[in-house]
This record gives sequence, structure tokens and C-alpha cells, in this order.
Amino acid sequence: MDRHELSRLFKDFLPGEAVIDHPVSLKAYECDGLSAYKQQPLLVVLPQTITQVQACVSLCSEYQIPIVSRGAGTSLSGGALPHAQGIVLSLAKMNRILDIDEYNRTATVEPGVRNLAISQAVEHLGLYYAPDPSSQIACSIGGNVAENAGGVHCLKYGLTVHNILELKVVTIDGELITIGSKALANPGYDLLALMVGSEGMLGIIVEVTVKLLPQPETAKVLMGVFDSVEQAGDAVAAIIADGIIPAGIEMMDNPAIRAAEDFVHANYPVDAQAILLCELDGTEQEVSVLCQRVKSILNQRGANETRLAKNEAERALFWSGRKAAFPAVGRISPDYYCIDGTIPRKTLGPVLNEINRLSEQYQLRVANVFHAGDGNLHPLILYDSSIPGQLEQTEELGSKILQLCIEVGGTVTGEHGVGVEKLGEMCIQFNEEERNQFHRLREAFDPDKLLNPGKAIPTLARCAEHNAMHVHKGEVPFPELDRF
Amino acid sequence: MDRHELSRLFKDFLPGEAVIDHPVSLKAYECDGLSAYKQQPLLVVLPQTITQVQACVSLCSEYQIPIVSRGAGTSLSGGALPHAQGIVLSLAKMNRILDIDEYNRTATVEPGVRNLAISQAVEHLGLYYAPDPSSQIACSIGGNVAENAGGVHCLKYGLTVHNILELKVVTIDGELITIGSKALANPGYDLLALMVGSEGMLGIIVEVTVKLLPQPETAKVLMGVFDSVEQAGDAVAAIIADGIIPAGIEMMDNPAIRAAEDFVHANYPVDAQAILLCELDGTEQEVSVLCQRVKSILNQRGANETRLAKNEAERALFWSGRKAAFPAVGRISPDYYCIDGTIPRKTLGPVLNEINRLSEQYQLRVANVFHAGDGNLHPLILYDSSIPGQLEQTEELGSKILQLCIEVGGTVTGEHGVGVEKLGEMCIQFNEEERNQFHRLREAFDPDKLLNPGKAIPTLARCAEHNAMHVHKGEVPFPELDRF
Repeated sequence: MDRHELSRLFKDFLPGEAVIDHPVSLKAYECDGLSAYKQQPLLVVLPQTITQVQACVSLCSEYQIPIVSRGAGTSLSGGALPHAQGIVLSLAKMNRILDIDEYNRTATVEPGVRNLAISQAVEHLGLYYAPDPSSQIACSIGGNVAENAGGVHCLKYGLTVHNILELKVVTIDGELITIGSKALANPGYDLLALMVGSEGMLGIIVEVTVKLLPQPETAKVLMGVFDSVEQAGDAVAAIIADGIIPAGIEMMDNPAIRAAEDFVHANYPVDAQAILLCELDGTEQEVSVLCQRVKSILNQRGANETRLAKNEAERALFWSGRKAAFPAVGRISPDYYCIDGTIPRKTLGPVLNEINRLSEQYQLRVANVFHAGDGNLHPLILYDSSIPGQLEQTEELGSKILQLCIEVGGTVTGEHGVGVEKLGEMCIQFNEEERNQFHRLREAFDPDKLLNPGKAIPTLARCAEHNAMHVHKGEVPFPELDRF
Repeated sequence: MDRHELSRLFKDFLPGEAVIDHPVSLKAYECDGLSAYKQQPLLVVLPQTITQVQACVSLCSEYQIPIVSRGAGTSLSGGALPHAQGIVLSLAKMNRILDIDEYNRTATVEPGVRNLAISQAVEHLGLYYAPDPSSQIACSIGGNVAENAGGVHCLKYGLTVHNILELKVVTIDGELITIGSKALANPGYDLLALMVGSEGMLGIIVEVTVKLLPQPETAKVLMGVFDSVEQAGDAVAAIIADGIIPAGIEMMDNPAIRAAEDFVHANYPVDAQAILLCELDGTEQEVSVLCQRVKSILNQRGANETRLAKNEAERALFWSGRKAAFPAVGRISPDYYCIDGTIPRKTLGPVLNEINRLSEQYQLRVANVFHAGDGNLHPLILYDSSIPGQLEQTEELGSKILQLCIEVGGTVTGEHGVGVEKLGEMCIQFNEEERNQFHRLREAFDPDKLLNPGKAIPTLARCAEHNAMHVHKGEVPFPELDRF
């Protein structure tokens, strides 16, 4: 079907301004946060009600039109990359907060509500919504659910999947179903967890009920300064092994420290090989005890300095460098590529050393700034896309780093999703039987594969090609890491 | 296929003692903890290795023999009730602890390992496995995963699904797949959460990696004594609304208090209409602050007495009555039927009043003893199966109570699963489109429906029949509760 004809069909039940069909206006929807990939869709539609979403989906179902749903478009893995023969179904206009239940500590919102807007709406009640992706000013809760978003505080408070109670979902048949509940447990298969992180491939999320948490009485941040990344990694594992669950533990290596310090002057030690920022929250008494314990672990594990932020202003200063780390790296390199993988905490030190070795081998600088407590790495590969071949080299290095994550028992995504970015690595992470199970599961929701086709789960053909070129699961390309 | 022939096929690859085919020996497998339902299977097989499980499943797949997997057989909803034309696949002999990783705080075990055995195996490391169903001495971790088991401490530490990291699963094709991982997050659809609570219908769990938690430094228990169940219910909601997450909050009403006191002499106040037992754990400082806060909330909410257990001996005494409550009720009635449903916490008071009203209407005594913090009710209906019609009346009252849970926004199971017990109520909880989605999902794993057929997800025919007799979703049979 051509654009004009399809547009007319949508305008039968949507107001004119809710259907975008002009190529110039469509440009804004060509990509998400992974801007290396671009594709213009046939149309963008912006429904404002559940009934309109149902009508949109039914129409696409009838004419076999692919549907890519989109929140705020901040995905870093290309989850909202359009399909050339499909529509983008934007949930941006469905942005009302429907209900705040102080007593049960829940909020029910439309999918286009921004992550931070939820916490702002309940701030006066002393509550907040815990998962805090760094894009939280912009990203939408529907997108957070689709990608199972994380953030600094997920170490203590869990990923999106742990903070969602109920979803209303429009199925590919245009039916509205409710999954999960506001009570403790749900009978039947756990469709709620299944829907979270399914990257728009199982249904369209049209309503989200989130858990709210009480704001902690106080929070303090402690900085540990180290001469080696290995020591810093071991200190992280030691803190957790001691039974402490900080609100967050972030790690930055020397290139990241220098870039951040040059940019925001957070008073970071620029000669350190690594710093840890460890935030502790709770009651005054609890936090003061925990600060002592963490400080003594940092010292035992070789920190040559520890600093406790004396007040809120200094706490904000400590965090300013971490929060500005990505743009700071952007200032010292024409381009950078952010990798997202997870590893067991105890492998932090050796994996960071191996990343350094790979960085030298590829002659590409890598800055590390990441959620160390979760073992969620974010190596930033610095490159220059104007140098022929360097983007390809960067992608190859990125893939090597993700393979390394798999080899030590980790996974190829922590919080950014698979999207189109990591389809190849999925071929390594999962064997054929496992991938087949994903496909069968998908078909149980969407037999015609109209929902976000080409994302998250690689086809068998793609994996045959990928695995012919790359390492196979089971082999160990990093023999020095074999001991894990 | 007849028993003799099938037995011979299994004995081709299993040792003789691993195949039970004599009717007398089969008797032990006729039912699980829901003993009102009994069925003799064709055979019971007890594989000891993953390879043997794969061979068993492949054989059943080839000959289209239903498979009911079974752990320790303590299910309260009939999840392990055998199929007349099928085998029981017992995982009881797969009971080795395979790996304890102190550093990453995980244990990897075979499915037949008992829940409590995990905590015992890591006690010397200062660690434990948190979910603690009351059957934890006997129940197996594989069964816990299949039913998503709960327990007293799940209020703070989550259900089974929140404490499992990785599973090895044999699919209906006899393939071995690994789902989840020991790292933070998993790419692809969340098969791990999906498998937990799927009641043996999606695959056979053959290995489980659990999270271990550090034992809390201290734990204290506070008793609140109330003149009305409504006040006690409100106090529970007020504690949680204040931002406190106790390790557990249990509630007992007057019939349960009296029965427990008569049985174990826990020094409970026998004239109270309700008591709350609130356990607080953490560091000494934290617990002492929390005890003060909880005490003052209990007083504000109308407790006419609060008691703090002075030492470990008194703490054990406080808990002794709660732990003995089920057998205690068993002493005062020829039979009792334990209901398992969840409700939003704020509806505790009104729902308990409504259960009292139904109890009078049906002329059947009901004792309430339950996980109040989670809103997880366990009304025990006292009856006498020797009085004609009383079992049927009891089942009808139980069903009414579960409908009440649905009406106030709760669900028909908290921690016992659906099994065969609650198939009817599933027809009320979920609409046809939602149930169809469950069926399609199941077929994505098991197209021939050989895994635990007839459990958890009701057929359309069954629901047509059930809904013709009973209330429909959307109607409100308890108009006085309409305000929730």
C-alpha cells in the first residue's frame, strides 16, 4: 500500500494532525538514540486514546502493515528504528497521569508520561519512582517498560521489571488485555515480566501502573580513589559480598575521570586509575553506620583516599562528573560509541584489563564509566567517523567486548535492549534451540510478525551468517579468562 | 499404551528402581498436598541426571504421553495431581547442591534439593535463601520455582521469582536450554520470569541458580493486639504507607489466636479480635529505630497493647503460635480448607469483615491467619466432610472468597498456584482474550499439550460452563465493596 492511500485510511478515525505523512515531518522519526541507523517509515500516527490505538492496530493487522511503537525515541539500541513498509505508532500524545494511590503507593499513567514526571507528580507525598535511566528527563515510561530500562539506583531498587505492577496492552488483534495486578502475585503465566523488555514485539503498551517508593530520609555519597581498575573492581565485589546494598556504585576509569574533570570541574583526582562513587541511603543512623563500613572496605581494598561528601552541595558536585561523563567524552573525540553489557561482579577487574588490552590492539581509546555494583559495563569507544574504516573497527571492537561479557558468564545487554544493534551478539549468547523458543513465543502473540519486525531476536538465517564469521558459543576466545 | 509396555520402554535407559509401576507403590504419588483430588498415574519415573530427564521427555513426546513433573509433592493446589494416561516425572532424586559461589552470592542446585537445605548449606558463610514457604523443611526448590512459592519473609525479600537467577530447562523436544543468567539483566524475552510459576506446563526444570542473601545482623518481633480486625488491617497498611518494609507482618484473627494458644501456649491474648506479628530485621541501630516507629504506628492505629519480644526465646515463642496455626486449627475441626488469595492492603479491613459475613451466611467457621503485609489472605474454612454436602458448601464459600479478592482488585492466588483447585476462578479473573493468550503461549512451548495437561489455565469450554453458573467479571456481587 502506498503512503497516500494508507494515510487516508488512518484519517478516517484519527484527526488530521495525528497522522504525519509528509517526508519533511517524517524526518524527526527516522531514528532513535542510535542514530547510526536511519529509516523513513511510511507514516507516523499519534493516537490519544486506547480506542484509537486499537483502531490503528486493527487497521495494520488487516492490511499486514508493520508497526513500530515509539515512546520518546531515546533508545540507544535502535528499538524504535522505523520499518520502510510500516508505520511508527507514537505514544507521545498519551501522556496523562491517570491515578495516584498514596495508600497503596502506586501511580497509573499513560505510556507517554516521562519517567521523571512520575516522581515530580508524587514528590509532595514523599514518594518517587525508583528506576532512573540517565535520559529520565526525556524518556517515557512506555519506552522504559519496552526496554526494561535501568539506571544508577537499580542496584538497590531493581530494574523497570521490578517496579511495574500492571499493564494494559493492545494485542495485534486490537484487543485490550490487562496483565499483572496491583496485588502481590498473579495467577497464570507471568505475562507482566514477559512484556517488560519485549521491545514492542508482543503488544502495544497503553497503560502502566508503577510502584512508588518512599523517598529515603537521607543519602550520602562516598568516593574511593584507586591506583588500579582491578582494585576498584575488587572493592565493589567486596562491598556487596559484605551484605551492603548501596543505592548505587558507579565506577569511572582514568580517561573518563579526566574527560569529566575537564568538562565540569568536579574536583576529581585526575591521576587516579579509577574512582568509585558509592551512594548510601536510608535513615540517618543506618547511613552513618554504612558509610563507616564502606569506608573501611574501600581502605582494606587499597583505596589510597576516600572522601565523604560533607553536604548536599558536595554530594551534587561528586555526582556532576558522573552525570556529565558521556557529553564530556563527546568533547574529547569526534564520535563515541557506547557499549552496554553485563558481567558477574567478581570479574570486573580482569574484564577491565582485557578491555584495555583490546583497546591497545585496535588502537582505539576506551573510557569506562558504568554501574559497577550491577556489573553493568558502559565502555565508550572513542573514534572518528571521518577516518575511513574506523566506524567498522569500532563496531568490531564493541562486538569483541560483548563476546567477552558472554565468555565470563554475563550478557550482551544491561539496560539498553537489543534493538537492531546487538542482533549479531544474540546469535552468540543463545543457541539455536533457545532462539527458536523466542520465535515460537513471539508467534504466540503475533503470528504475522507485524510488531517491530527485525528487532531483538535474530532470524536463523542471520545467525547462520553471523556464526560462520564469528566465534561460536562454547569456544573461549579469551583463554586467560577461562578460570571464571 | 499400557502400563507394562511403557514401563519396559523406560527401563531401556533407566535403572529398574527408577521406574515405579506397581499399583501399591504408585499410591504414594496419587495426590499432592491437595488430597481431596486423587488420580493414579500410569507410571512414576525418577531420573537422576539431566540426560535421563531428556530421554524420558523424548520418549513421552514420541508416544504422546502426558508428563506431570513433581518435586516433593507439597503443592496445595493440585499442581502435581497425576494424569491417568500419563507419567509422573519425579525430580526427587536430583537433589545435589552443585555449586556455592560465595563471592557472587549464588547457589546452583538440582531441582529436588529442599528449600531449607540451601540455607543450611550456606549458613557457615553467613548467607541464606530468603523465600520461606511454611513447608520449607520438605518442599523442593524445583517445586518452589514451578509454583512461584512465597512465605513470611517475601514481604521484604520477594517471591521465588525475585530470588532466581538462572534455570536449566528440558523442553518438550528433549532439548536442554538455559534461561536467565548470573548477571544483572537478560536480553531477549524474559523466559526466566515466565518459567517461574508456570506449574510444570512449559518445560522440566532440571537446574536452579538462586540468589543468596546475607543473614541480617539482628531481627526483632513486635506484637500488636487489637479489638477489631479492621483496625489491625488499617495498621498494616499504615506501616507500609509510612515507608517501612518489615521482614514480615502476619495477622491472626480471634479463632486462629484461640486455636494456636490452646495448642502451643504462646501466651497470646485470647480475647483479642486480631493480633499482628511484625518482624523487623537489619543492623542493631536500624532495627531499634524501626521498632520505635512501628510501635508508635500500632498505638496510633488503636492497638490496645504492643509487646516487643525481649530475647530470642521470646521471639521464638511469639512465632510458635503463628507457625502452628494450621495444625492448631486442624485440632478444633475434623477438616479445614485453606484458601489463598491476594488483595490490595488497603482493603484488608473491609474484606475480613465481608469474610465474616459470608462465614455466618454459610454457617461455616473461618479462621484467618495470613501474610498481612503482602495482602495475601489464607482463610481456613472449618468443616466436617462426614456431614453430607458440607464439603460442597465449603468449596462454594471458598470460591466466594476468591471472587471477593478479584472484586477488590486482587487475585485468586498468592503463593499456592492455580493447579486444579482454582481453574474455575481463573475464568472470572481473566477474560476470554486473556485466557486465549495464555493458551497460545503454552502452545509456543508445548504444541501437543503434554506437559501437565489440565492445570492452571482453564479451557474455553470449562469457562463457558463456569461462567454460566457463576458471576461474570465486571459485575459487582459485593456492592458494599464497590468503593475500591
